[in-house]
Amino acid sequence: MNDQLNDALNYARTKSDDILKELKSFVSIPSISTDPDAAQDIHLAAEWVAYKLKSLEMENVQIMPTPGHPVVFGEWLKAGDGAPTVLIYGHYDVQPADPLELWDSPPFEATQRGDNLYGRGASDMKGQVLISLKAVEALVRTGGLPINVKFIVEGEEEIGSPNLSQFIAEHRDLLACDFAINPDTGMISPDIPTITYGLRGMAYFEIRLTGPDHDLHSGIYGGVVHNPAQVLCELIAGMHDETGRVTLPGFYDSVRRVSESEREELARLPMGEDFYLQQTGAPALFGEAWYTPVERVGIRPTLEVNGFLSGFTGPGSKTVLPSTAMAKISMRLVPDQDPKQVETQLEAYLEEHAPSTVIWELISHAEASPSVTDRELPQVRALSQALEDTWGIRPVFRREGGTVPVVAQFQDILGVNTVSTGFGLPDDNLHAPNEKVHLPTFYRGLEAFTRYLYILGGV
Amino acid sequence: MNDQLNDALNYARTKSDDILKELKSFVSIPSISTDPDAAQDIHLAAEWVAYKLKSLEMENVQIMPTPGHPVVFGEWLKAGDGAPTVLIYGHYDVQPADPLELWDSPPFEATQRGDNLYGRGASDMKGQVLISLKAVEALVRTGGLPINVKFIVEGEEEIGSPNLSQFIAEHRDLLACDFAINPDTGMISPDIPTITYGLRGMAYFEIRLTGPDHDLHSGIYGGVVHNPAQVLCELIAGMHDETGRVTLPGFYDSVRRVSESEREELARLPMGEDFYLQQTGAPALFGEAWYTPVERVGIRPTLEVNGFLSGFTGPGSKTVLPSTAMAKISMRLVPDQDPKQVETQLEAYLEEHAPSTVIWELISHAEASPSVTDRELPQVRALSQALEDTWGIRPVFRREGGTVPVVAQFQDILGVNTVSTGFGLPDDNLHAPNEKVHLPTFYRGLEAFTRYLYILGGV
Repeated sequence: MNDQLNDALNYARTKSDDILKELKSFVSIPSISTDPDAAQDIHLAAEWVAYKLKSLEMENVQIMPTPGHPVVFGEWLKAGDGAPTVLIYGHYDVQPADPLELWDSPPFEATQRGDNLYGRGASDMKGQVLISLKAVEALVRTGGLPINVKFIVEGEEEIGSPNLSQFIAEHRDLLACDFAINPDTGMISPDIPTITYGLRGMAYFEIRLTGPDHDLHSGIYGGVVHNPAQVLCELIAGMHDETGRVTLPGFYDSVRRVSESEREELARLPMGEDFYLQQTGAPALFGEAWYTPVERVGIRPTLEVNGFLSGFTGPGSKTVLPSTAMAKISMRLVPDQDPKQVETQLEAYLEEHAPSTVIWELISHAEASPSVTDRELPQVRALSQALEDTWGIRPVFRREGGTVPVVAQFQDILGVNTVSTGFGLPDDNLHAPNEKVHLPTFYRGLEAFTRYLYILGGV
Repeated sequence: MNDQLNDALNYARTKSDDILKELKSFVSIPSISTDPDAAQDIHLAAEWVAYKLKSLEMENVQIMPTPGHPVVFGEWLKAGDGAPTVLIYGHYDVQPADPLELWDSPPFEATQRGDNLYGRGASDMKGQVLISLKAVEALVRTGGLPINVKFIVEGEEEIGSPNLSQFIAEHRDLLACDFAINPDTGMISPDIPTITYGLRGMAYFEIRLTGPDHDLHSGIYGGVVHNPAQVLCELIAGMHDETGRVTLPGFYDSVRRVSESEREELARLPMGEDFYLQQTGAPALFGEAWYTPVERVGIRPTLEVNGFLSGFTGPGSKTVLPSTAMAKISMRLVPDQDPKQVETQLEAYLEEHAPSTVIWELISHAEASPSVTDRELPQVRALSQALEDTWGIRPVFRREGGTVPVVAQFQDILGVNTVSTGFGLPDDNLHAPNEKVHLPTFYRGLEAFTRYLYILGGV
């Protein structure tokens, strides 16, 4: 092994206790991007990232405003004009922590139990952001990076990055690079390093129905009005057919056909029915029967109810016939579906199926395009090498069900490819109570990321 | 007009300001029976009623414990053995006031605006309880009642009177009477006095579904598990067919056939489509097409979603695939349906239709039998006379959609008939924000009730 890489890996190892403290500090900031009351914590998290970037000898470190939460930028260009420039993406915002009562320790007091550190954002993705920072630090402190590096760390990923596309377009020159790294995807298991070459897009909506113009007594009026909670159930039930397919008009028309060879490669992923049964704890799996679970998550679009609310939901009984009902509904999209097109399809569905007994309203909360990256890119191969050198086995390639809007935006606006990876695990409880990061995997990820940045110097 | 009746009516009139103060005081007690934190207010409301009974020269006034909230009892037996004994029913508990933000004045600070007094329970039924107390007072203070009177005022009507049946059975002798009056039903309009001879029963349930054993990321797992919110929507959607009929197996088997003559009489009620459109503010009506609105509410059973909740329902977006979903579902029943039978039918429906991808749980919150009273009873005719003497027109007879379990219980346990009436109006916003009582109708109701008790002496 090269001396500098060796030094860098040793540097990171000797700092492991400090790094754990830094992770706890980062997790302790409740930077919940969807919470209108969290503005101060959002800014604190941005300051935290900016401070770390400065301490890595990054230059031009800025907390840059957007119409929403700010973006943190920093760059290290000392490798010079002849070296490639890599843009590293991250987000410092996190999901809400509710329902709070299901957490075994406070979500914003990172708590170690065994090999895991529990806290909101520990895995998604404050842990991953810290890995990228510390990998850069390890190389900077042991002679410098062999490549130029730029960081873009945003604060609105968990609400669908509504302002990122505009930001990237407005700062094309500042963000100019040869390719990009997105460490916001995860691993299949602690022993299987994973490269994600496809990500689903998203379209997130809220449907609001109003029937009677005020809550009614279900005895005095039950029988003459169409209960909006019932209507909403009928509309949602009609969004899937009995085979699990989404019924929005034209929903599958733009779905790109996946080759048999790609399906064969996906079939090698060790994620069968048992894997998903174990990870989800569901009594049985569900979905389009003619696709495997991996395919249903990776190459097929879905429509999910993320939440609904109507009427009385407290303890006991209240005989109300509610005036309104609402649901949060989101679709995960695959190439070449388009979020705007899906919005039109949902509108068409509601126009066709919503009865005249209710008034409906459709609100779009977030949208993101799907993306697929070429597995043969040299930067993807370099990552594959770094992961193999760390874990001792070749990584698997997969298409992930999650959404990272920035990958499609880097492609469309900056004209660069992005390679996606990350060191979160399937049981990290992302977006759920008791989110955690597996510390041995976290440290291994740091080692792999350090190797990757080093190897990229030779690409 | 008889001198004593004249005196009694005058007595009530001169006390009208005091009576309004008493109503405000009664409404100010937030005696919400479904709220586990309201125990103290429940007891305060019971004390309030007991104090009023004592001040009417009632004897044997007691606040009697039940496994839930107490029952207030009092009796005036000075009319002697030769006179009939009437049992007057009431409830001192109220519905929850949420959503609080939709009230124009605080729900538990009775506030007069124009002819109306706003406050939770003002109409349902603290106002009605006060009318019965003040009618008795007017006669007691002007020479005594021509009949014996007993009061039974419970504190669990708004949660389905779970302990009342047992209470009545255990105190058969104390409650012994010749017939009963239930002032917990309302009027069609301020100008049309109304006698309710039928009441729907109720069966109230909570359905809880669990799919995955924890909340999942809708990207990482969307496509392989059956979303319990979606399953619940499918189950609820399937509970009605496209004609608005309830699909639970055997649901209509016990529904008693209504005679053509009764349907003709119901058709004379001035409550057509326009009435219900205006009262509900719904864009269009709904329900079994071959029954009129009055029939759909009075003689037909229904199934309503009273509330549902799943996943993320706050502002913005959260890409969660929820672990659980719940709905409150209640049926209004007509003779000869039975709440226990309906529970069995709902269980059978869930057993048949709930998929193996979820675990379901069914909780029964409340049940009450439906009831119909003979319109030709002398006590019903006496009420008809009292209402006609007050309003100058013959009252209408109707079957109401609401539920007053006690009517069926008096029939089954005490062996007496009950006549139902009351002076609430359709726009009183029962069980909804901005509940109010129309004061001119309230005072007219007091006059009618006083007349009724007087006339009953001659039955």
